[in-house]
Amino acid sequence: MAGGVGSRFWPFSRNNRPKQFLDFFGTGRSLLQMTFDRFAKVVPASNILIVTNQSYKDMILEQLPLLKESQILLEPNRRNTAPCIAYAMSRIRAINPKASMVVAPADHLITKEIEFLNAIERGLNFVTGTNNLLTLGIKPNRPETGYGYIQASDEGEGDFKKVKTFTEKPNLELAKVFMESGEFFWNSGVFMWSVETIYNAFKEFLPDIAAKFLEISSVMNTDREQEFINEIFPSCQNISIDYGIMEHAKSVHVLCGDFGWSDLGTWGSLYDLSPKDDNANVTVKCKSLTYDCSNNIVVLPEGKLAVLQGLDGYIVVESDNALLICKKDDEQRIRQFVNDVNLMPDNENYI
Amino acid sequence: MAGGVGSRFWPFSRNNRPKQFLDFFGTGRSLLQMTFDRFAKVVPASNILIVTNQSYKDMILEQLPLLKESQILLEPNRRNTAPCIAYAMSRIRAINPKASMVVAPADHLITKEIEFLNAIERGLNFVTGTNNLLTLGIKPNRPETGYGYIQASDEGEGDFKKVKTFTEKPNLELAKVFMESGEFFWNSGVFMWSVETIYNAFKEFLPDIAAKFLEISSVMNTDREQEFINEIFPSCQNISIDYGIMEHAKSVHVLCGDFGWSDLGTWGSLYDLSPKDDNANVTVKCKSLTYDCSNNIVVLPEGKLAVLQGLDGYIVVESDNALLICKKDDEQRIRQFVNDVNLMPDNENYI
Repeated sequence: MAGGVGSRFWPFSRNNRPKQFLDFFGTGRSLLQMTFDRFAKVVPASNILIVTNQSYKDMILEQLPLLKESQILLEPNRRNTAPCIAYAMSRIRAINPKASMVVAPADHLITKEIEFLNAIERGLNFVTGTNNLLTLGIKPNRPETGYGYIQASDEGEGDFKKVKTFTEKPNLELAKVFMESGEFFWNSGVFMWSVETIYNAFKEFLPDIAAKFLEISSVMNTDREQEFINEIFPSCQNISIDYGIMEHAKSVHVLCGDFGWSDLGTWGSLYDLSPKDDNANVTVKCKSLTYDCSNNIVVLPEGKLAVLQGLDGYIVVESDNALLICKKDDEQRIRQFVNDVNLMPDNENYI
Repeated sequence: MAGGVGSRFWPFSRNNRPKQFLDFFGTGRSLLQMTFDRFAKVVPASNILIVTNQSYKDMILEQLPLLKESQILLEPNRRNTAPCIAYAMSRIRAINPKASMVVAPADHLITKEIEFLNAIERGLNFVTGTNNLLTLGIKPNRPETGYGYIQASDEGEGDFKKVKTFTEKPNLELAKVFMESGEFFWNSGVFMWSVETIYNAFKEFLPDIAAKFLEISSVMNTDREQEFINEIFPSCQNISIDYGIMEHAKSVHVLCGDFGWSDLGTWGSLYDLSPKDDNANVTVKCKSLTYDCSNNIVVLPEGKLAVLQGLDGYIVVESDNALLICKKDDEQRIRQFVNDVNLMPDNENYI
């Protein structure tokens, strides 16, 4: 799933270059490329499908030049994860109705790849030939209020625990209770199931979406697929797979682990993940000299130098034609700033 | 005089692009170009000579394309203002020993051009055919400790007052006394005199320099001039015209006025001079959106956008491959930062 937009990483992310296409670590690989590289180790690369918005097709082909165009599934508009997954499921079903599938966001970070891939392989075995729906859960290390939580029960098969409840972003108090209980895990947004199982789940819990894709199943994987997708997609319900299916379905399991996972949701989360100097400053991609500075994150293009003095707890980001300086504690305001930039005359180059 | 170097405007100024070549106001004209434009209104452009370091010759020709190469006087090394002025004087003397001349730094700002040019015309009349040495004085509006001061006496001819004393950069206490006295004026570094008068002053007060230029007077304004300048210049005494001549000479006068003058010595002085928004923020060349910000100066390349939050009293400057953020109160440390950048491995692109 590589269709996301988002302004929280502005000015590093832009409308025409959202987060999944960005190289956050100066490694030369974007989050999308890192996600592709990771899955290509357990799945034939030709079996990887990228679902994205039509406007990102060229960017995908540029970043993943070995991909065939047919591996890119183009959404004419954004309808959250349920229609996105229904589309991928329909395509795979047209090729092999007995297949199993992994669904993963293209813009998350995994630093413990071996553990992650091991979980993917075990998960695929667990769902293949069964009616299990599986999600990967992450053991929380802080009472994060920005994530969804999954409550695991004691029932299940070994590490694969049956899910009791899904809870969307809790308040801080509740998040603390969740963390201390040991029963709650972050919802990573990585799912596994057989095509047959998810198809039946759509029919049961999102019958309107299921019906639309059933209607066009005969053109899937043919030259006319895009035409029909463009027709049905805009009228699909805008709903997440979590709300639409996972919270209602039976036999939903969670496999929990420590994968060095982050959804890289904000500059603050990038700060938390990154190596720090003696004064807890983080420098990403560029070089820096700091004086009387602590707890800052500075992100400039590679090869660029930042000389900073007298800053504590700031985000400093420069990219192309824009510079952002903002207190880390106020990073939730970046969205508002971007809205204000949007209202500027001649703004089109900045967002 | 356009030979200066300086790191106080780093990263906007660089070794290969010092202050006089920079467009500080987004007008499309550098300080050098503005100085040239200004004097071309009272002096034929063909009579303007630029004295600079050899390494800036191409930059001068690029910025002032109508200049003939012969109007650029190249110093092989830096020897402060006395040898610089001796060189220009010798060249002019070879062309017309009865000429009068104005000496001015290329990197100062004048915002009241009519008043300034009026003073130049009156000053040239005052020195022509006399043995008067004249300097322009600026009425101080603050107890500045970074400038030289000129004490004017009551004697003189009208506005042209005889100078009592020159004082280099005073401490703050003394600067306050100077300002309150009403007798002291900032030394603008703009001088006028006849070639004959300054030639005699060199012979009297800086006889070694006078002798060197006398020796090569027969090659001045010929093809061999540069060759001989390159030979004598390195052995010239490194001394300012103020120390070397003005402090000792008789018949030194000062013409005081309000020309909207600034030597633009630091980011702080650019801040003080510039128009401010409701929160006393200054934005130079670029666009800006500010939140919880006051008393800052932000300078980015034209067309660029700065979004700033939670800054009070900072300098924010980005140019090419470097970004500087520094408290305005600590701007004297910029020199040290640049020295530190100089010590970085692979620093050559940054300074």
